Amino acid sequence: MATPIDPTSAAFLVAESRTQPMHVGGLQLFRKPEGAGRDYVRQVYEQLSAPQEIAPLFLKRPHRSMKTAGQYVWIEDDHFDIEHHVRHSALPKPGRVRELLELCSRLHGQRLAHERPLWEAHVIEGLRDGRVALYTKTHHALVDGVSAMRLLQSVLTTDPERRDMPAPWARRESTRPPREPQDAASVLDLPASAFRTALGISAEAAGMPGALVRTLARGVRNETSAVSFYAPRTIFNQPITGSRRFAAQDWPIERMREIGKATGTTMNDVVLAMCSGALRTYLLELDALPEAGLVAMVPVGLNAKQANIASAEGGNAVGSVMVQLSTDLPDPADRLAAIHTSMVDGKDALSSMTPMQILAMSAIGMAPTIVYPILGMHGIMRPPFNVVISNVPGPRSVQYMNGARLEGMYPLSIPINGMALNITCTSYDGKMCFGLTGCRRTVPHLQRLLAYLDAELIALEKVAGV
Amino acid sequence: MATPIDPTSAAFLVAESRTQPMHVGGLQLFRKPEGAGRDYVRQVYEQLSAPQEIAPLFLKRPHRSMKTAGQYVWIEDDHFDIEHHVRHSALPKPGRVRELLELCSRLHGQRLAHERPLWEAHVIEGLRDGRVALYTKTHHALVDGVSAMRLLQSVLTTDPERRDMPAPWARRESTRPPREPQDAASVLDLPASAFRTALGISAEAAGMPGALVRTLARGVRNETSAVSFYAPRTIFNQPITGSRRFAAQDWPIERMREIGKATGTTMNDVVLAMCSGALRTYLLELDALPEAGLVAMVPVGLNAKQANIASAEGGNAVGSVMVQLSTDLPDPADRLAAIHTSMVDGKDALSSMTPMQILAMSAIGMAPTIVYPILGMHGIMRPPFNVVISNVPGPRSVQYMNGARLEGMYPLSIPINGMALNITCTSYDGKMCFGLTGCRRTVPHLQRLLAYLDAELIALEKVAGV
Repeated sequence: MATPIDPTSAAFLVAESRTQPMHVGGLQLFRKPEGAGRDYVRQVYEQLSAPQEIAPLFLKRPHRSMKTAGQYVWIEDDHFDIEHHVRHSALPKPGRVRELLELCSRLHGQRLAHERPLWEAHVIEGLRDGRVALYTKTHHALVDGVSAMRLLQSVLTTDPERRDMPAPWARRESTRPPREPQDAASVLDLPASAFRTALGISAEAAGMPGALVRTLARGVRNETSAVSFYAPRTIFNQPITGSRRFAAQDWPIERMREIGKATGTTMNDVVLAMCSGALRTYLLELDALPEAGLVAMVPVGLNAKQANIASAEGGNAVGSVMVQLSTDLPDPADRLAAIHTSMVDGKDALSSMTPMQILAMSAIGMAPTIVYPILGMHGIMRPPFNVVISNVPGPRSVQYMNGARLEGMYPLSIPINGMALNITCTSYDGKMCFGLTGCRRTVPHLQRLLAYLDAELIALEKVAGV
Repeated sequence: MATPIDPTSAAFLVAESRTQPMHVGGLQLFRKPEGAGRDYVRQVYEQLSAPQEIAPLFLKRPHRSMKTAGQYVWIEDDHFDIEHHVRHSALPKPGRVRELLELCSRLHGQRLAHERPLWEAHVIEGLRDGRVALYTKTHHALVDGVSAMRLLQSVLTTDPERRDMPAPWARRESTRPPREPQDAASVLDLPASAFRTALGISAEAAGMPGALVRTLARGVRNETSAVSFYAPRTIFNQPITGSRRFAAQDWPIERMREIGKATGTTMNDVVLAMCSGALRTYLLELDALPEAGLVAMVPVGLNAKQANIASAEGGNAVGSVMVQLSTDLPDPADRLAAIHTSMVDGKDALSSMTPMQILAMSAIGMAPTIVYPILGMHGIMRPPFNVVISNVPGPRSVQYMNGARLEGMYPLSIPINGMALNITCTSYDGKMCFGLTGCRRTVPHLQRLLAYLDAELIALEKVAGV
């Protein structure tokens, strides 16, 4: 039976091409439980690939034909084959994290075929430290990045003894996954509808040439903001290819918190300062650092009062702030201070925006490939920022998947034409997990950014005197 | 620059669907050279993924657009990325042949994206016996199965010391790979043009409603043959899905030769008798054995005199014989005798056919998805055979790839709608290597056929008294 595809999802399908796959990914690292046998990973794989029943979301595939007048509809996959979607893989020797990131880069660079349900999960063994990895891939037409992460977390529990957690794609009795109370304030707890609303705007924008598009256009020109600056051209803002490189690493949140405390900045400012310093070093090395500082688009969570929106399910919203990364400043302390100021200004500007303006801003971050062409029609030829840096709070307490302890979770995002690098961080159990996703050709040696992030954290500690 | 695609290749692209991927595969197993280091497999992978220059065949991808009036053309891939095509993989524990076959099944079930050059090669480590596997996948629009095998063999040498053999996809000085003299009579030495000619017929058939299609139709009705029989309906002759299962094993050719000697039959008869007995047991177990015996389509090589064709490059041709497998007979000796008679009759019939008729017959085996619809238009609703069994001679002497000894090579073929199982054998170094490729749903528990083949070989030895 065919069901309609909402316009936003359809737009992600249409926007997709070989050079611009439209799926989000997640990499999770697990420590095997005590006394796990030789067959442990195979058992995990078998459990994940044999749910009693598959949730409808994971059974549907897009379809268009003469009959549907060329429009996409969802149809249930007649030949659904779980073995196609859930796979058991292994790393080549020596099984370092490097080999894991290479595999994830490769997997993330391959498009999901539209002829099948739009998701994959890979249970990966062969890490020489004995850990087990789970890489998942979900099309943006099915879920946005945050919902995808929430979905993955639905299989986790704080109970190390619990063994009956269903696979994320298993059909559940209740329509909502159980949630951990301690994360009530995190972005993950935003109702999916809030994201859908934000996304909805952009999709409907094509048929909406009035007030909203003007709001969008003003938003990206920063005319709604107290500060107004212009992003320089960089190597990141070019057409991209379909090759991907993924790099990931985590650092203790405590280190960032200490720097923030000593300098009067926030932990998020420190994360942005790490990115700023790393990008500066990276671009200097390539002799490609522009004179003007890079601008980052940073999604921020807003509470109901701030956002002045009462959504159906609670009252949260997401806005985005343009942050001046000040990559032109040579001193780490100066960069951190400038970022802090820019962030405060941006948030102030955001709080003075109307709900519609905030949603319009959010739409840019959530669905840039859809929004940019529309903006292009209005004379804005390129986005006013160079890179997207998101920081999505994750679970604070230790999580387990059927007894295996989760040690880290790293998001893989979507580079697009004109935005070749994406940095997304997730906090988990006292660690800040960075996931860097880029076009391998446009962003050469992306993995070097990890070393530069590390060096920058040390430099910030030094200037903060901690 | 766009170059035209010949009609046969285009037909394979058009015929392709999710349930009917149109690529052929090859699995090769290598023993590492003495003294190979820990990094040996990585070195092999790196050597294969870094040719000086890629041969044009491996750089082109199909393309069609408004500009090409919806017709396929070849264009060179602007963003060619060898890392997408040559991959380094590993098997999950315990790394038995079973895990290897599972991986090959999965890889063989995934379509090659038309947006990239139509091939992949996977260097696979992690077999617990220390061997290294190479799985390759090439679209039928690029090469037919025999040419694909020849291409793979072009990287092999009888010299265990030689280390400078280029990757199969590397551009070479000479346009022809070096050939081993001892295999001069093998099907592998047929000029590719002979296959292309055979294939060409079918592709041009759409515009050729006269003598040739009548010949084709008479051919599949066996009206050109002295014997005429009708294939029963079986579970193999149904629509298929896109899931694949691959099974492979080898047995010493000497055992088959001994049976042939003792019973006055050929080694090829014994191979067919093994298949017959195995299929009988398999279908009995599923309570699906038809009363009438199954019919196999068996491609046979013909020399120039037999075929009465003088081809441009030598004078060989391929015909196909319909062989009554006599799966209805309970006794292995009776089945072998019946197969022998059927094969002799079929070959006699073939030798009385005109060259055009032989080519028409060959076209059925080589390009069934193209030929069947054309035959359908002429009132033949299903093929007059149940299964394709090919036996392709391979190299007789031990081969090496840059020092690694080739221990076995197993072909993966193309199941299509109505022909869910394909059995292809390759001889190599005194072994007969069987490759069974089927739709996993239409042919359940395909791997059981390996045990039945083994049991049948033992049964045949018993009745032959060897």
